[in-house]
Amino acid sequence: MPRNIKLEIEYDGSDFHGWQTQPELRTVQGELELSLQKILNQDVKLIGSGRTDVGVHALRQLANFESGLDQETILKALSSVLPRDIVIKRVEEVSPGFNARFSAKSRVYRYRIFLGRTALLRRYMWEVPYSLSVERMSQAAALICGEHDFSSFCVVQSAKENSLCRVDSALWRHAENELEFTIEADRFLHSMVRILVGTLVEVGRGYFSVADFMSIMRAKDRRKAGPTAPACGLCLVEVKY
Amino acid sequence: MPRNIKLEIEYDGSDFHGWQTQPELRTVQGELELSLQKILNQDVKLIGSGRTDVGVHALRQLANFESGLDQETILKALSSVLPRDIVIKRVEEVSPGFNARFSAKSRVYRYRIFLGRTALLRRYMWEVPYSLSVERMSQAAALICGEHDFSSFCVVQSAKENSLCRVDSALWRHAENELEFTIEADRFLHSMVRILVGTLVEVGRGYFSVADFMSIMRAKDRRKAGPTAPACGLCLVEVKY
Repeated sequence: MPRNIKLEIEYDGSDFHGWQTQPELRTVQGELELSLQKILNQDVKLIGSGRTDVGVHALRQLANFESGLDQETILKALSSVLPRDIVIKRVEEVSPGFNARFSAKSRVYRYRIFLGRTALLRRYMWEVPYSLSVERMSQAAALICGEHDFSSFCVVQSAKENSLCRVDSALWRHAENELEFTIEADRFLHSMVRILVGTLVEVGRGYFSVADFMSIMRAKDRRKAGPTAPACGLCLVEVKY
Repeated sequence: MPRNIKLEIEYDGSDFHGWQTQPELRTVQGELELSLQKILNQDVKLIGSGRTDVGVHALRQLANFESGLDQETILKALSSVLPRDIVIKRVEEVSPGFNARFSAKSRVYRYRIFLGRTALLRRYMWEVPYSLSVERMSQAAALICGEHDFSSFCVVQSAKENSLCRVDSALWRHAENELEFTIEADRFLHSMVRILVGTLVEVGRGYFSVADFMSIMRAKDRRKAGPTAPACGLCLVEVKY
């Protein structure tokens, strides 16, 4: 009887073509599956809580797979073969019904902005050279809480796809030269956090008003929103079950 | 009459062969001098507060040079030509007698350790996989305060060179999985902070006792001390004048 094994994974997305396995490209899921195949000597299908884009980081991504080995053995073996930009933080045996993707209740993303230039944090933050009104950005962020259609804040996809998301919280924090946006939702559309951040920064620098932001959301039209913020500032920080 | 211009510089040391200009190698001083030459259209000799080794970072390195241009123009011009891993934080005109190296009263370095593995901080911390006694490391660190001969904690150099340094403070801070060592001294010998940290970690994991540490310091012999900690954990954080 195979065990259902849950992995907590941290990764630096800088040198990956995102989470999802793709032929010929270095991806996080691909590296993990390759390492698990070496250890288990068989094909492994890893189920992640969701995809992250090219260059996006994760402090705590969740995934599960079936294995005959116990958690201790898997942790040791994986840690010895994985590259330095993927770290297994925890391995746990879970009930057979657990599915990292479908059992997830919500996901939390964090986006970091540095006001000015930074050599030491540039790989993990978006460097924004102009001043921003955190007050206006917070007012606009408050408008997205609750259930809404986020078509304006996602890359164009098939019209049939459901664009409703339930945002549980969306908060800006400000300390010295750093701004941090934390958002929790039941699901996220493609590039949704980065387009939201790109648009909220336009509100912060005064190009859009808070009322404009509301109109953009109601328009359900990607072309009305601001630019997509760079991937390096984004990090998946938690998946709740 | 040329002006004496002081630069405050932040850099990510990962992709540099240290501070000092060297033929054929990418160095911080070399990149800065090259950029200044483009701007000023003449040879520039930049005086740094001190050298940093291959892979060592700086949050606030200080340097000065002579120029006919004013500080605003220099800041704008430099910021537009420098690579992303060097950031000019401030440009200031100072009195003619100011010399970034000889006017410095003390330098402050910070060394960061992560207890375990980290994907997201690995470029800026030393990953130490075993548990450490911060209490013993702090006791040993207290012994280096004051004026001492630090021959045991530097790479072998000519016997004639002065190995006396006055350490003003040497403190460990501990928060969750992170350890931070901050040391202030009037001067530092080659690789001194990294050999001190490597030896203090040996105290922390119990390979050396605090009394052993005292004997090592008194021996004035590099071979008695512990290994050199990796460069990536080290950062020059301040130069005091």
